[in-house]
Amino acid sequence: MHANVTAATLERVAGHRIRFDARFERYFDSLGERFDVPVPSRYVPRCLELLREFSMRGGKRLRVVLLYEAARLVTTDETPGLAEAALSIELLQTHGLVHDDIIDDAPLRRGGPSTYYAYRGEFPGQDATALGLAILAGDLAAFLSTQVLLEAEVPAELRQALLGVHTRTAAETVAGQIADLERDSHTLPDEEFLHTVTDFKSARYSILAPLTMGLLAAGQDPAPHRERLHRYSRSVGISEQMRDDFLDLFGPSGADPAAEMKSTGADIRSGRRTYAVRAVLAAATGADAALVEAALGDPGCPDETLGRIREIARAADVDRLLKAEIRRHAEAAAAEAASWEPYWRAEAVEFFRGLPMWNVDRMS
Amino acid sequence: MHANVTAATLERVAGHRIRFDARFERYFDSLGERFDVPVPSRYVPRCLELLREFSMRGGKRLRVVLLYEAARLVTTDETPGLAEAALSIELLQTHGLVHDDIIDDAPLRRGGPSTYYAYRGEFPGQDATALGLAILAGDLAAFLSTQVLLEAEVPAELRQALLGVHTRTAAETVAGQIADLERDSHTLPDEEFLHTVTDFKSARYSILAPLTMGLLAAGQDPAPHRERLHRYSRSVGISEQMRDDFLDLFGPSGADPAAEMKSTGADIRSGRRTYAVRAVLAAATGADAALVEAALGDPGCPDETLGRIREIARAADVDRLLKAEIRRHAEAAAAEAASWEPYWRAEAVEFFRGLPMWNVDRMS
Repeated sequence: MHANVTAATLERVAGHRIRFDARFERYFDSLGERFDVPVPSRYVPRCLELLREFSMRGGKRLRVVLLYEAARLVTTDETPGLAEAALSIELLQTHGLVHDDIIDDAPLRRGGPSTYYAYRGEFPGQDATALGLAILAGDLAAFLSTQVLLEAEVPAELRQALLGVHTRTAAETVAGQIADLERDSHTLPDEEFLHTVTDFKSARYSILAPLTMGLLAAGQDPAPHRERLHRYSRSVGISEQMRDDFLDLFGPSGADPAAEMKSTGADIRSGRRTYAVRAVLAAATGADAALVEAALGDPGCPDETLGRIREIARAADVDRLLKAEIRRHAEAAAAEAASWEPYWRAEAVEFFRGLPMWNVDRMS
Repeated sequence: MHANVTAATLERVAGHRIRFDARFERYFDSLGERFDVPVPSRYVPRCLELLREFSMRGGKRLRVVLLYEAARLVTTDETPGLAEAALSIELLQTHGLVHDDIIDDAPLRRGGPSTYYAYRGEFPGQDATALGLAILAGDLAAFLSTQVLLEAEVPAELRQALLGVHTRTAAETVAGQIADLERDSHTLPDEEFLHTVTDFKSARYSILAPLTMGLLAAGQDPAPHRERLHRYSRSVGISEQMRDDFLDLFGPSGADPAAEMKSTGADIRSGRRTYAVRAVLAAATGADAALVEAALGDPGCPDETLGRIREIARAADVDRLLKAEIRRHAEAAAAEAASWEPYWRAEAVEFFRGLPMWNVDRMS
């Protein structure tokens, strides 16, 4: 795969995923014991089924891998509480994506229908019912995400600390999603504002929270490390977000199989002023600028216009500059992780050092 | 007000409300300390402001009163943890109502705009943005509702028990809301199914959870009392729900000032197969039945048709029978509370015994 990634690391990461997926299945098997369900009901079991299907289509489980590797910064011993933290993080992710797909009116997610569109398919002509059920499915996932942490068989103080990270992060993520909607109200959002949105909307729950919870479960107080963990999370988050935004504008480049799945131009058609779109807007003038503005938020924007926007972008060197920025932020994260050696186990530090570059090196 | 309610009780109840509202204001004042907020942002502070406005328009604070009186079943001492439990329950209520008003497409709530319609007013012609912001506002309230319980300065075991009640109840309430949407898919829903919906959708979080949390905070294990608390909650919930449904069909009867606020016929126009609507459907035949079916879910159903449906209902004695049922369930709840005397303080038992009849006696 990649020169920086050893076979042992890849095997370990695969092991985290496989064990977690089996555990996640068992969690859904036993969901009926966790709270009462109205009987008779068809809609409630169907909701649980949709949450299960969606959650199990989870792909890379990056958050779970980060969580387990964070614990390995401290110890290779079995770490009680990690499994529940992983379930909680992935259920929070389900919650967020189910609601996101309503907000974005997105038919597809993770190679299948979004929960919202699954319901729309099951209730043709009853959009209000489909909307209601999708909102409620997301709400249920949020509460299950909290509840599962309460079941961790760890000292009460640790359970409380994990819950504290969870709810604080969940609130900050919602704030980030709100700021994300705000972003698109700016003609030319400030790049620093885009960084803040990325930090709140994704870096905190996808990277910082798993890191923090993993350290906590492994018995380490993360408070003295908060700044360095946050710097790392923010840089990885920005690099990854820029990469997503790059791929949406320019399409998959070269041999990146994950990127093949992404649709192109969705950000422009939805009016999202992403890193890539912002860079084009900042560079374009006159008729070019007007063309980009007109395309933004036009769901019917034709492929030819998108092609023209790509030409404008390339002429302004946006593709090259963006790739350089993606690499710069990834390298900043890698450098941050490299500075962790005095504190933590070398093998896990090496994992965090290598991770930011995985996708970057595939792009070039 | 009512013969069963002593001046001392009324004063106590008013005291619970006033103290809680002051505390709720202080909570919102200090919200910025509880999680990071993206800076600069206009949308996030506006969301917090809307949540505050909506939450402070909370009216009767029945859940808070029940919580404080539940603690008084055990003790009149200051009870640590009650204030946080009250904040948590009211924030959960905010969460539920904000999302409910999206699901029901409801412009008004608590004598002001729903959060969804407040956003629609602020984003004219941008319905998707308003929808997204309202979903996110509700999500934020849900996480804040969990977070505030983590701050209770009580032994870790109690905090954990309160959180357990909270998340379980929150999940069951969502299941109840899903079942509520299912109800309207039945031509003639079973009355027992309506009871189940009422139990899950409102009785558990509005009555059972405050009772359980109040006892917990006061140092009592509620587990041995679960059945009697649930019987009481379910009966009060059913009686209150039937009363709401009665008022929506027949309008405020006599000197019930709270009822004057309610609109009439909203349930029929929205296609809700409530207790009252179900009773009319069960009684009507032929052309009458067809007329009721045609009106259900017709937002433009004229007042004359609603008047005709009321006539059909009265001719079938639906109003009298429903009033009798409302009273019967309230009396069952009162009898249940009366049986609590061996376990708990007489003064608070008397409060719970009197409560179910407050609204019932105002109706007749």
